[in-house]
Amino acid sequence: MTKSSSFSPRQRFQTFEDPSHRKGPERIEALRAALRETGLDGFVVPRGDEHQSEYVPADAERLAWLTGFTGSAGTTVILMESAALVVDGRYTLQALEQVDTGLVTVVVMPLAETTAEGWIGANLKRDQVLGYDPWLHTPDGLARLERAVTKAGGTVQAVPNLVDAVWAGQPKPTAGPVVVHPDALAGETVVEKLARMRAALAEGGCDALVISDPHNLAWAFNLRGSDVEHTPLALGYAILPREGRARLFLVSPNVDPTLRAALAPIAGILPRSDLDDGLASLAGVRVRLDAATGAVALKEKIEAAGGTADVGKDPITAMKAVKNAAEVAGARAAHIRDGASVVRFLAWLDGAAASGGVTEIAAVEALEDFRAAGGDLRDVSFPTISGSGPNGAIVHYRVTRASNRTVRPGELFLIDSGAQYPDGTTDITRTVAVGEPTAEMRDRFTRVLKGHIAIARAVFPTGTTGAQIDAFARAPLWQAGLDFDHGTGHGVGAFLSVHEGPQRIAKTGTVPLEPGMILSNEPGYYASGAYGIRIENLVLAECRTMSGGERPMLGFETLTLAPYDRRLIEPALLDPGERAWIDAYHARVRETLAPGLDAEAHAWLERATPPLLD
Amino acid sequence: MTKSSSFSPRQRFQTFEDPSHRKGPERIEALRAALRETGLDGFVVPRGDEHQSEYVPADAERLAWLTGFTGSAGTTVILMESAALVVDGRYTLQALEQVDTGLVTVVVMPLAETTAEGWIGANLKRDQVLGYDPWLHTPDGLARLERAVTKAGGTVQAVPNLVDAVWAGQPKPTAGPVVVHPDALAGETVVEKLARMRAALAEGGCDALVISDPHNLAWAFNLRGSDVEHTPLALGYAILPREGRARLFLVSPNVDPTLRAALAPIAGILPRSDLDDGLASLAGVRVRLDAATGAVALKEKIEAAGGTADVGKDPITAMKAVKNAAEVAGARAAHIRDGASVVRFLAWLDGAAASGGVTEIAAVEALEDFRAAGGDLRDVSFPTISGSGPNGAIVHYRVTRASNRTVRPGELFLIDSGAQYPDGTTDITRTVAVGEPTAEMRDRFTRVLKGHIAIARAVFPTGTTGAQIDAFARAPLWQAGLDFDHGTGHGVGAFLSVHEGPQRIAKTGTVPLEPGMILSNEPGYYASGAYGIRIENLVLAECRTMSGGERPMLGFETLTLAPYDRRLIEPALLDPGERAWIDAYHARVRETLAPGLDAEAHAWLERATPPLLD
Repeated sequence: MTKSSSFSPRQRFQTFEDPSHRKGPERIEALRAALRETGLDGFVVPRGDEHQSEYVPADAERLAWLTGFTGSAGTTVILMESAALVVDGRYTLQALEQVDTGLVTVVVMPLAETTAEGWIGANLKRDQVLGYDPWLHTPDGLARLERAVTKAGGTVQAVPNLVDAVWAGQPKPTAGPVVVHPDALAGETVVEKLARMRAALAEGGCDALVISDPHNLAWAFNLRGSDVEHTPLALGYAILPREGRARLFLVSPNVDPTLRAALAPIAGILPRSDLDDGLASLAGVRVRLDAATGAVALKEKIEAAGGTADVGKDPITAMKAVKNAAEVAGARAAHIRDGASVVRFLAWLDGAAASGGVTEIAAVEALEDFRAAGGDLRDVSFPTISGSGPNGAIVHYRVTRASNRTVRPGELFLIDSGAQYPDGTTDITRTVAVGEPTAEMRDRFTRVLKGHIAIARAVFPTGTTGAQIDAFARAPLWQAGLDFDHGTGHGVGAFLSVHEGPQRIAKTGTVPLEPGMILSNEPGYYASGAYGIRIENLVLAECRTMSGGERPMLGFETLTLAPYDRRLIEPALLDPGERAWIDAYHARVRETLAPGLDAEAHAWLERATPPLLD
Repeated sequence: MTKSSSFSPRQRFQTFEDPSHRKGPERIEALRAALRETGLDGFVVPRGDEHQSEYVPADAERLAWLTGFTGSAGTTVILMESAALVVDGRYTLQALEQVDTGLVTVVVMPLAETTAEGWIGANLKRDQVLGYDPWLHTPDGLARLERAVTKAGGTVQAVPNLVDAVWAGQPKPTAGPVVVHPDALAGETVVEKLARMRAALAEGGCDALVISDPHNLAWAFNLRGSDVEHTPLALGYAILPREGRARLFLVSPNVDPTLRAALAPIAGILPRSDLDDGLASLAGVRVRLDAATGAVALKEKIEAAGGTADVGKDPITAMKAVKNAAEVAGARAAHIRDGASVVRFLAWLDGAAASGGVTEIAAVEALEDFRAAGGDLRDVSFPTISGSGPNGAIVHYRVTRASNRTVRPGELFLIDSGAQYPDGTTDITRTVAVGEPTAEMRDRFTRVLKGHIAIARAVFPTGTTGAQIDAFARAPLWQAGLDFDHGTGHGVGAFLSVHEGPQRIAKTGTVPLEPGMILSNEPGYYASGAYGIRIENLVLAECRTMSGGERPMLGFETLTLAPYDRRLIEPALLDPGERAWIDAYHARVRETLAPGLDAEAHAWLERATPPLLD
């Protein structure tokens, strides 16, 4: 079958060009020339944008432009005689491959402290001045930077971004449409949301909120944009006073009149360039500024206006994490739509891979096409990770035309993908055997699946954090002396980011899980150079009542609907409860998806999901 | 059988008098008179002693003397018109019972913030002065207190302890013998230990260490004392310079000449009263002071002398937590000795309770007598918790002559006890059925046992914290909507405190577990007003090598040796692995303890531990 090619050519959401380059020397030299002109001794270039975001618009890809490194986290420090790229362990190999290491030293730091302070402390000389862009650092981040620089005997100095000054051809900020996210999908009107936010401000003793996280902006004002790939954000800020109209300051001028009209009674939409005026009006006002995403530039402008910046938590973050009934209904609907597309893809893959003709890129394109055909697809929720054989063991693998390989018999194929629908964001990973898997592959897959089932079936008291249950997903691997080096699950938004906090199933997941939170459940196992296994469903935290129970308990409803590859399951490693759970899940997948499947995919699904207990 | 009465009368370690009193009114009035004399408006009385310790000597029981409250944690604030006792949830009932609530308001705070700051903020008036004893607060604790007082518009003032001023009949500081803890049991000479400590000081950039934790003092200098009930501490301090002799400042003058001679080449032993002179010698010296146990008085004296107080971690705490080969061998030997005594006790109990004649106090006395007869008993490691029926549901129950009740058929009996031997400290809880247990009791007991076994069998990578595995012990209860409200395990010392940090299996256990750490494994279930269940063994963290494993892994060796009550086990709730673990453990208990048992106890043990798989 060559179903993917039967679609009419459409602009796909994912491309496969290698975004790295070998222009590091001249670009870094240009930056050094700018340093000389300004009298600075160095400049810090973090990966994030003005919102300290993981997903940044093209014009904020300064780190990639400068060094060639395209990972999602890292910081470069350029001094006159030396330069470093500081990354966490996930990106060691990628950084070494993409960066000119004769020019830039790659420094690997533990995940929790991906900061350049250590390197700066050791390399900056006494009396040197390190420049930074105050829009790209939080007050806390700047304080850490300043401590390191001061310890080295230097000073820091805020300057307009020097990369922007030397980046010829820097993309223009996007001007994508900013539209209404309908109340029917949002489940709560902007008026209702603003009332809750104002109550939280009152409780925190603040008079106003500066919203610096575009995810929170989108949630608060029931709007969606298109300034960033794969996440429907409208970049910008908002000022929400305890009383009176809110003001939004948006980068894109392309605001749908319907949105403007809908918000008119409660909020005005202004251009991003009016933000300074907005902040200047905050004299005498106690302003909550989000510690995680609010730039130090915001703090300084608030204070310059005579306001007080109360750096803490944007209350929206916690509200957004708990999905209401409409968002939950949307998520369920999106997952049924997505599941049918994934099943059609898996059915196609099963035939096509066996005949030896499927490449990683072909799989990505086919899956995107099946999703597009399923309807309502707005975007993929992130670039699909499509890894065959050894590429599957690279946790953040992104296939390019250069790395693309054909899935061969005897290999595992790992595909981690997701979609943006108006009613929900999906994220699913399946690992599929092509040809005959080895006994070790089956053992490892089954252990990963046992951990995945342990999370799916977990029951825990209210107040329990993700950190407390993370080990449930690891115990079957631990018993064999194995583990995986990423968290078990991240939060997921409602037609928003596929990585949303603060909820998380990981050692770092320190907030209590609450009914309505959506998280991924994705343990894995990676045999470096050989194969990778990951099994991922999204789950919804919900209340549980048990007969004879004494405590308010929570559990998970699994939202994702797609079969596990039975050829990789070793039933002898499963206990009766685990086998029954798989059978019940597969039955639910069949029953729920059947109405949306063509006869061929339906027949494949029936063949793929007979009970293990038979 | 009345075996306990067949022992010759000896001074027992545990008494059963109710230590509370009804003298609150006159004592608080006396304190207020002292306040008037000194011109203060209030005084803070925390539970801890000069070492911020959980276990305090009789002369430091100021909180109990003043209010009648005998719990192990709490703070009283006495103002002229009002007074409060702030405790955590464990002590709500006890505080309400012991304190004259017409005089003292009982304020319950979450465990993590058992502080009086909230009440002070609401009750202290503008311009009032709150006195505090600088020996009874850490710098951090004082800073918190000061913030609350300042917020209320008041000030704090350091004063000599006002309770001491009005406490007629305050016990004299104990003068128990301070003796050598032999190198053969300590497993490391003082010279070797001091070298490690000095290396840690060098790494931390400090020139000297003030040891403020008597547990650390005992460990560092291989000495043991008898200043506090049930824990072999010699109260006092030490100053350890990076170079030169250490100086110990001990409360007890009763120092064994052998100890003095052994330490002479490396350390001098001086009276506690010389401490001020010692601290005065620290001009120009950077001194590490333990944040958890070092009093603000120490910090001020160091600074007054011209030294710098570097408030951080005493490096001994982490060293002491990791037991060496000799300490591990000692622990194993102590547990064999202790296990034989516990088995003799359980055999006696089985007969005596069935005939209806065993009271909670009789059980405590019998168990202590069996331990004394087993040899080498230095003390019980804490007052035995001996709870029949509903008393078993009180987690920190301490039987008194007033509360004492007879264990009746159809009830559960929970006994949590431990011993101090020269080679090790033990801590064991067993829950025993008297007569026929109900199906619910068997269900709950088996769930608790499943959690206990999950910890005993846990395997996890190095770097894993106790917080990450705590939920293993809870999952079987969670599945039924149940839980318990205490940590799963605490650290235990080597002939030192039965509660030792920083290792812990609990939500708060944030340090990685290391080979050589000893912890308790003690999940429970409490049916308020009906019965309590707890099953506790001590376990030793150790390295694990698995065939085919890829990561350095850890697991636990169970040290405690005593049978579980098979009458309370519901085999249908256990999986084959759990049943096999119980059988193997019982076989090990039989084989290891047999040589130390008389024929009668041996026969009982054989009857009590047939395989579940039969």
